[in-house]
Order: sequence, then C-alpha cells, then structure tokens
Amino acid sequence: MKIRNVRLYTGEEEYRKGCLVTDGAFITYAGPEEAAPEGGEVVDGRGGILMPGLCNAHTHAAMVLFRGVGSDLALMDWLDKIVPLEEALTPEMVYDATSLACAEMLKNGVTAFADMYRHMDAAFQAALDCGIRANMNRGSSGPEGVDSHRAWARDWHGAGDGRIRVTMGLHAEYTSDENTVRYAVETARALGLGMHLHLSETAGEVEGCVRRRGARPVEYFDKMGLFDGPTLAAHCVHINDEERVLLAQKGVWMAHCPASNLKLGSGVFDLAAALDTGCRVCLGTDGASSNNALDMFREMYLMALLPKGLRRDPTRPAAKECLSIASRNGALAMGYEDVGLLKPGFRADWVLLGDEIGLMPGADTAADIVYAAGSGFVRMTAVNGRVLYREGEFPGMDIQRLKARCREHARALGVEKA
Amino acid sequence: MKIRNVRLYTGEEEYRKGCLVTDGAFITYAGPEEAAPEGGEVVDGRGGILMPGLCNAHTHAAMVLFRGVGSDLALMDWLDKIVPLEEALTPEMVYDATSLACAEMLKNGVTAFADMYRHMDAAFQAALDCGIRANMNRGSSGPEGVDSHRAWARDWHGAGDGRIRVTMGLHAEYTSDENTVRYAVETARALGLGMHLHLSETAGEVEGCVRRRGARPVEYFDKMGLFDGPTLAAHCVHINDEERVLLAQKGVWMAHCPASNLKLGSGVFDLAAALDTGCRVCLGTDGASSNNALDMFREMYLMALLPKGLRRDPTRPAAKECLSIASRNGALAMGYEDVGLLKPGFRADWVLLGDEIGLMPGADTAADIVYAAGSGFVRMTAVNGRVLYREGEFPGMDIQRLKARCREHARALGVEKA
Repeated sequence: MKIRNVRLYTGEEEYRKGCLVTDGAFITYAGPEEAAPEGGEVVDGRGGILMPGLCNAHTHAAMVLFRGVGSDLALMDWLDKIVPLEEALTPEMVYDATSLACAEMLKNGVTAFADMYRHMDAAFQAALDCGIRANMNRGSSGPEGVDSHRAWARDWHGAGDGRIRVTMGLHAEYTSDENTVRYAVETARALGLGMHLHLSETAGEVEGCVRRRGARPVEYFDKMGLFDGPTLAAHCVHINDEERVLLAQKGVWMAHCPASNLKLGSGVFDLAAALDTGCRVCLGTDGASSNNALDMFREMYLMALLPKGLRRDPTRPAAKECLSIASRNGALAMGYEDVGLLKPGFRADWVLLGDEIGLMPGADTAADIVYAAGSGFVRMTAVNGRVLYREGEFPGMDIQRLKARCREHARALGVEKA
Repeated sequence: MKIRNVRLYTGEEEYRKGCLVTDGAFITYAGPEEAAPEGGEVVDGRGGILMPGLCNAHTHAAMVLFRGVGSDLALMDWLDKIVPLEEALTPEMVYDATSLACAEMLKNGVTAFADMYRHMDAAFQAALDCGIRANMNRGSSGPEGVDSHRAWARDWHGAGDGRIRVTMGLHAEYTSDENTVRYAVETARALGLGMHLHLSETAGEVEGCVRRRGARPVEYFDKMGLFDGPTLAAHCVHINDEERVLLAQKGVWMAHCPASNLKLGSGVFDLAAALDTGCRVCLGTDGASSNNALDMFREMYLMALLPKGLRRDPTRPAAKECLSIASRNGALAMGYEDVGLLKPGFRADWVLLGDEIGLMPGADTAADIVYAAGSGFVRMTAVNGRVLYREGEFPGMDIQRLKARCREHARALGVEKA
C-alpha cells in the first residue's frame, strides 16, 4: 500500500510532500513523495497528515460500558457506583465492551493499548478479533489472579502476529497483600513477563501505604524487586524526588494519565520533573468512566499544556516531545520494539488525518498534531498494515450490531437511564 | 423545522426522547417528542444529542492564519513572530481568515463569538455573510481605534436580525494610556456599547501596571469607571480576593480562556474561587495561534477538569455548570438575551451531536457532553434557525474556495512553509 499526498510526520522527521509505502505488516519506505517506489494500492491522503498511531499506555477498555456513571462524585462515592456494576459483568459483556472500546480507539487514531481488567479471556479475544494491538493483563489482587496469567502467557502472548502481548497485572499496593506482590513478581519472572500496576495515584494511597507497610509505595515495591524487570507503572502522581530518581534508574515506564488524575481530583503528575530526572514517560487515558473518553489527542493536549501553565514556561514540553511520549514511548512501554515510528522495518501502524480547516495553514506539523488536531480529524487508522478504520467505517467489524449489543448490556446493568 | 429522535439538553432540562421545533429564527417547542407539535421540515437526530450552541466569549478570529506559528516559544519571542505578520494583514486577508474561523467554529458547534481584532469592517462583513452570531470590536490602543467604533455602532450594531453586535474594544492596560482608556469609556457610554478588554492575563502585566500607574489593573480601571457599564474582561488570571469581590459586585463578565493561559504559561484562572465569590464567568478559546484550535468542547473539558485536579475535589465544578458557562453565560456576556437556552421564545441556535460510540451508553447527558464529547461529534449547527453546518458541508459557503484563498494569504505572509 502506498499513502501519498500527505504531510508525513515519522516521529523523527517531517516531509511536507511525503509518502509511506508498506508491504504487508511492515513499512518499506517513508520519505519524500518524489523518491517513493511503487507500492500496490494507492491511497490519496489529499493533503492530510500521516503520523504514527497513538499508543494508549493505560486503560480499562471495557469500562466504556460505565461511561458517565458517577460523574462529579468523590472517589469513594464513585467506586460505590462502579464496583457493583463490575461485579455484575459477564465475559460476554467484557467481549463486547472491549470491542466497542477498540472501535472508539481506532476511530480516535489509537493503534495499541495497555489494558488491565477482568474476564480477560474475553478481552484478549476481542482485541485479537478486531485487529488492534494490545498488551493485556488482569489487575490481580490475590494469588488466583496472578495464576491466571500462566495460561494467558501460553495461549495469548504473541498471538495475532505479535499484536497481542501479556503482562503480569497487579492492581495496586492497597488492594493486595505482601505475599501476592511477591508471588506476582516471581511468576512474572518465571514466565518472562513485564509488570503493569497502579502506583502512587493518590495522596491517600501513599499515606495508607506508610501506615500499612512502614514505607511509601515505591520503596515497598522496590524492596520486593518489582522494578527489576520491565515495569509499566500507571499514574505516579505522588512521588518525591528520591522516588523519581529510583524509578528513572530502574527504567520504569510511567504511564501519565492527566485527564483521569484531574477528573478524580488525584492531582497532577509532574511531567517536567520526570523528564528532567530522565524518567521514561508514556501516556494513557485510563478507563472511560474516569475520563470520559478514550481520546489520546485530548490526552496529549492536556499533557503538553499542564506543565507550561503550572510552571509558567511555554517552552516546555515541546510538541515533538509530547508526540513521542504518546506514540513511540507507549509502544516501547508495552514491549513493541518495532512500533511507534514510521520508518522502514517498523510495523505499519499509522493514522491519516484529514486536510481539516483546523489544521490550516500548516505552519508546523508537530504543533498542528499536538495543539490543533482532535480525534475528529482522523480519517484512517491501520494496524500491522491493515486498515481498521476508514471515514466512519470499520472494515471487518459489524459496528451497528456491536452498538446494539452494548446498549442491551448497559440496560441489563441498569446503566442506561432510558 | 422539527428535530426529533434526540437526547435533548436544553441548558436547564434533559429529555431522553426529546424534540425541538423552530419557526424561522425562534424556538417554539422544546420537550418530549410525544407532545411535540408538527413543524415543517423534519430532521431525524438518530439518537444523537441536541444542545444549545456554544458561545466563544473571547477570540481573535482571523489569527487562524497564524496557527502553529511560534509554538513552544516564550511570550515575547512569540510576539516577535506574530506582530510583523499582523502588520502585514490586509482587509481582504482578514475577511477570508475570519470566514475560515467562522467555518471552524460552526463545525465545532460554536454559534456565537466575541471577536477583538483589526480591519474590523472586513471582519463584520465576514460574520454577517456566513450567518454566525458575533459581537465584535477592535482592540483599541489609541483614540483613533476608539473612534472607529462610532461608525461600526451606526452601521453594524444589530445587523443580520440582531446577529451582529458591536462592543467598545480596549486592548489592555499595558497597550493604552490613561487618556485612551478614559476616552474609550466615555465613547462606549455615549454610544450605548459594552466594553471588551484583556484584564490581568499575566503576572508581568499586573506588576507593570503597579509600576506604571501605582495600582493593579482592576483598581486602575475601576477608578476610571470602566466597570460601571456592561464589561467583558478576558483572562482575569491574576486577580486577588478583593478584586474578585469588586468584579463580582460590578457584574463584570470574566472570559475564562484556560487553554491559552496554560499554553502561553500565563497561569490558571481560579474558577472555583470566582464561582464562590459570585463572579459571572463565560468561556473563550482566545486566538487560534495561542490555543491552537477554536474548539469550545476541548475548552469546556479543560475548564471542568482543572479545578477538580488542582483543588483535589472531583465534585466541582459540575458538568451542568460548565455547560451553562460555555453556552448561556457566553450569550449573556455578549448581550444576546434570548440565546443560549433551548426554550420557546429563544433564538434557534442549536447543535446536533451524532450517536457516537464515544457517547455510549448514555448514562448522563450533561456529563457526556462535557467529558466525553469532542468537536468531531458535531453533525449539524444552526444559528437563528438556519443550518450553517451539516455533515461536513457548509450550506451557503464556498469552503474549497475559501481554503484556497487562505492558503494563498498564508503563502504571501510566509506562514506556510511549503
């Protein structure tokens, strides 16, 4: 496939008249259009922007079913509404809701996501079926949850030509005892899996951990060796300078979730401090019920603007840095080494934005993507070279049937008022 | 016209199966579909959300021509790039750029805006021609600018069946001397016009005013009686408790511009304090070159999330409050008494959102609009009962020609790199 007549942003370089050529799942050419080889089916980008797919590094996909439930409530009141709904979920509901979340993400230019939820066999199947890239786990809080990753590592890790990956999920410090944490770390090492957990999301969590364990969460987990393997730690809002240095040294990926942290009143992750310390940062939406959208463009915008405003320094972060965090870094955090840049040899995970009024006059492509674009500008999204979203259509998905099924589930759960 | 099969949010009430009926420029019915009268042409809303048009209470519309110029630069470096471009603008460029900005806003569900710029005859004409509602002024910095409002008040105020309004524009304290401020206030009173100005946007502006005038900007303007008539004051980021009380007592409309204030590193307007003090708050995007979009959905989202996160209180502000600020309050701030609510007797300024995946399952309409919707969800936008945007088309505008002309202007100014 050959996508021509675009402003091409590769993640590293910009071409004003660019072209991308792919062969199956891989990119074979990315550069100026005049030097591009022939390449099968030709897509006319009509002056839009071609960019790497966005990588949502922390979400709970099936929670789209609870979007709008308990808005504007304090965390504990919100949980009082959400927890009984989660208990009532069936695998069938999780399959459909995860599929719906995938459709939403593809429509919004997201090509990969890191998921932590429940009834994960259904979730793995949903991600496999719809063609997206997903690194998934259960947010374990006990040994049974940990154990379930054994079968998933065997059955799912690497499925779909490497699209599906398994990570050991540990929900959080405050939801698991020491033995579970130790067991999760041991099992992850034995299976060769990375770890994905919630870390220092709220001030209350940190205070509670000090009371419970005599240490802050970072120290507690570090002593158990949790950070000695590949780790994706969501939130990291309440970490101090010493912890930042440690997490940087250990190469822990921090999944910054600015919208959720603001919306739940958790606080603001200090992105500038993290970058200054050499921390590895990626970006996530968190679940749709604490956001309330799986919209990485909006998330990227928030990430870019918060440090500028709160530190009163408009120069940092730069647009290109934000784009890397939202694409390449997320891919690396999920273990996809050949994803997140539009370069020969990399996976053909790309997004085409339209030639929108809102992108005119085109003075600065990276700035246009980060500050001006929205998810509504996405025209096409491809994963592994396969077009999964195109102008309102989802080739290979029966979206109307899926929406009808999700409406039924919402009604059965009492979520939809109608 | 009758718009049926929608979730109707009137600004005050919600109807799960709602219907809006309009007669010419006015609303004649808003309520449950089963009780709706007949009403000419029928629009099937297909399960989407029908809501009041958003009112952008502070922008510099024609600056869309400079979108992306000087991103990630400090304010003074940014101005060094922008000011020469502004000096080179012609009336023709302002006409086309304002038209393009109107198209962008209509596509984004904005039905009214407050504009402050230059070559305003061209800007008035652009707003009149495209059918949108606009309250416009020149950001005066001397007596000549003030005087130009005399002719506009005569020629433009109330044009287009009341769509076009004129306000006395005063750029800011730091760009005008005392005599100009006094003359602007006198002239506004003589002409029966409100005032629109930039107020206490940056800490440097406040410090400079104290040095120059021996008073902070609010005190300085108050002593000259500026706040004794209808006033729209953009930004108000750096105001103290005493100033907040004064501005509340005077009934000054504060145009909160969260994106621009963050992006330029100016700081964060304290919305919660303003609301607690009884201040009147509306919402604006500011110009596209410090945002970089005329996207009131994104702006509304920022407005809602910042206080929750910074005060660590997810309960405030509530979604409905944010929606009122972004619609009804903006209309009132611009002097449109019968705009901003979907009620009989009000102007038919409405927006239809699609039945989007991102709005499912529909648990809470106000929360869906504020937290989940994006500008990309807008399907139709109407002003004064006339549909100005519909599914990618702009009835009555030659959008391709307009884009081509704006590209030419950008090239002539050296903005577009291509």
